[in-house]
Amino acid sequence: MDETTVDNHLYAELWSASARAWNTPAAEPSGRPRPSLISFTYGLPDAATFPSEELTGAASLVLREHAATALQYGSIHGSHRLIAALIHKLKDDEGLDLDPNQVMITNGSSGALSQVARVLLDPGDYMVAEAPSFLGAVNSFRRAQAQIIEVPLDSDGIRIDALEHALRAAHAAGRRVKFLYVMPNYQNPSGVTLSFPRRHDLLDLAAEYRTLILEDDAYRDIRFEGDALPSLFGIDALGDIRGHVIRTGTFSKILAAGLRLGWVIAPEPIIRKLAAFKDDGGTSPFSSAIAAAYIEAGELGPHIEQLQQHYKRKRDAMLRALRQHFPPSVSWSEPVGGFFIWLTLPDHLDARTLLPIAHEEGVDYLPGAACFASDSGSNNIRLAYSQPSLDDIEEGIKRLGRVLTASL
Amino acid sequence: MDETTVDNHLYAELWSASARAWNTPAAEPSGRPRPSLISFTYGLPDAATFPSEELTGAASLVLREHAATALQYGSIHGSHRLIAALIHKLKDDEGLDLDPNQVMITNGSSGALSQVARVLLDPGDYMVAEAPSFLGAVNSFRRAQAQIIEVPLDSDGIRIDALEHALRAAHAAGRRVKFLYVMPNYQNPSGVTLSFPRRHDLLDLAAEYRTLILEDDAYRDIRFEGDALPSLFGIDALGDIRGHVIRTGTFSKILAAGLRLGWVIAPEPIIRKLAAFKDDGGTSPFSSAIAAAYIEAGELGPHIEQLQQHYKRKRDAMLRALRQHFPPSVSWSEPVGGFFIWLTLPDHLDARTLLPIAHEEGVDYLPGAACFASDSGSNNIRLAYSQPSLDDIEEGIKRLGRVLTASL
Repeated sequence: MDETTVDNHLYAELWSASARAWNTPAAEPSGRPRPSLISFTYGLPDAATFPSEELTGAASLVLREHAATALQYGSIHGSHRLIAALIHKLKDDEGLDLDPNQVMITNGSSGALSQVARVLLDPGDYMVAEAPSFLGAVNSFRRAQAQIIEVPLDSDGIRIDALEHALRAAHAAGRRVKFLYVMPNYQNPSGVTLSFPRRHDLLDLAAEYRTLILEDDAYRDIRFEGDALPSLFGIDALGDIRGHVIRTGTFSKILAAGLRLGWVIAPEPIIRKLAAFKDDGGTSPFSSAIAAAYIEAGELGPHIEQLQQHYKRKRDAMLRALRQHFPPSVSWSEPVGGFFIWLTLPDHLDARTLLPIAHEEGVDYLPGAACFASDSGSNNIRLAYSQPSLDDIEEGIKRLGRVLTASL
Repeated sequence: MDETTVDNHLYAELWSASARAWNTPAAEPSGRPRPSLISFTYGLPDAATFPSEELTGAASLVLREHAATALQYGSIHGSHRLIAALIHKLKDDEGLDLDPNQVMITNGSSGALSQVARVLLDPGDYMVAEAPSFLGAVNSFRRAQAQIIEVPLDSDGIRIDALEHALRAAHAAGRRVKFLYVMPNYQNPSGVTLSFPRRHDLLDLAAEYRTLILEDDAYRDIRFEGDALPSLFGIDALGDIRGHVIRTGTFSKILAAGLRLGWVIAPEPIIRKLAAFKDDGGTSPFSSAIAAAYIEAGELGPHIEQLQQHYKRKRDAMLRALRQHFPPSVSWSEPVGGFFIWLTLPDHLDARTLLPIAHEEGVDYLPGAACFASDSGSNNIRLAYSQPSLDDIEEGIKRLGRVLTASL
């Protein structure tokens, strides 16, 4: 069944005899008690980092002084105060000069990405995704019935030669490529960072082929060493102002995912279009006011510095454990930020086949095949080090090393 | 330009010379200082009713005891605790027996309605809307490129004879009507309530023509007298279980719109489908946890009783002022709940033409034409009494009465 439309299947099901019993409570999903499972599957922020005390202060302040706006319907563009706080942060961090009309607050960056998908993609349109990529976003593009062109990565990010080849082929076939979806920093899942020269090359190619760039910079601030490279949006805006980059970001990694707050910055005509189609029920004025109060109190900067140290220790622990416990035929990325390490196993191993064995050993991961729109990545694994404790990282990698060694 | 797709206009604009200056700050919209304007335009909840003190307590509790879940990513179906609290409320209020699989928490009821639109409607599908209706929802259906069949209301709600006629005609033309969008209680904008016999007739017609009912019950609890009639969902579920009703509700009117929390209850196959397509960034675990804590503390029931008294006083004040200040050729609905009164002016008057004159007098309203998908309602006005003070209601109606009297 086509995932992108609801056809008569649902209606047939609803009018079938079996559906008449829909209000019979379903059985609870049988709990699989595996208390000792160490999971590297999901890139969840570590709950130990949530600044709940500071947020309590921010919430009290908001409900005391700004209840009439924070508890009321808000603007389709999002909270003015949060937009102002975000513009201030982006100016401080990156020197960006943004007008409020170039910003929209969204329900996390996934809200932003699905909004872009709905607005820019018509059925049958083409777009480029990195291979591997973040399938949460790619599934939004699929729901919009887009055709996905995958372009491979290497250790410097998306391969410009392969991208040029793909764009030229699409152009020759008369196919309109609506945008290039890229994650330049500590990419999810590969962990690689797009090099500075390639950022320029990518912008040039996008301009040449008149396609937009959708820059997903969710992990930007989770950086372990050195300064971040300028974003594609930043190069585009500070350079000769072509205005062809849509950049998304999120408070999920740097404050709290449960607030569901992200943003999109883009040329004003694009923001206007995104706002006109924003019908997701709106982004919470309440959460936005609390995040704004938190930032205005000067809490975010120091918190991000703590997060960088916190996740760096986890990355270091995982890299150390990998070197110690893994067979030499397995290789991995060494990310300078973000939540993920990407493993490459020998070609003949299939990470999906190994997963049940890993479960038996008490360790869990995301098979790399889940990160490709096409049928690739069978010998890849994505490991998230963000949530487990340092001890669990060491122990989990030891377990996984045993599984891999035994399978060779 | 077709509002439902983004065609080459946007891309052309982005590559035009003028777009190169997109990062020039736009001029501020010129503020029209009219401090004494009394607005009956929007059905906003009265900020004076927001229980900010109790929400402060709920927020502190959540951040002290449940931060690890409230600040983390959540389930696509929404917070289990909020779902449990909602099921409990619907059992207490209406005797509904709901399984958690029949409930999804959404970003307000507008999030629920647009989700239903995206999942159930394919381009060219047909659906029925009341005339007049809530255009916020109707615009979501339009974005999904649905064809809208309008069926008129009378003082007992949607006209069953006209509905049957419309369904028969659609059926004869081979047009699949995906659902009937109705608001049975104190309808927005007309204020009318669907009578009990008609609720049964509507369900029978939907079953006969194998179409679903999308029941928007946003104002259900804002009731001024007597008991609420059973919902279409309730009659359907408690009767012979046909399972063809999707009902949406919201905490926006009974707690705080700024939390962006609503819900949809429906047969489990529909909820499963809605969840599979939920890509709006998710409904806030943080706001959900706070709302759940508020309800668990037993605050919601007494708060709703206060709201009923509060808005009843406003409705009464508006009805009183209408009787006192309006010319006899204008008639209006007398809603038993909700936020709106619907005016019918003499045929020759156009509410859009009168609006600038009303502005001059310092009063504002929604022209009825904004509540029809077709070109109707020129002599109608929607008045919202929810937000202005009692004094402003009296004064605003007096001003509007002057405008109407002078225009006759």
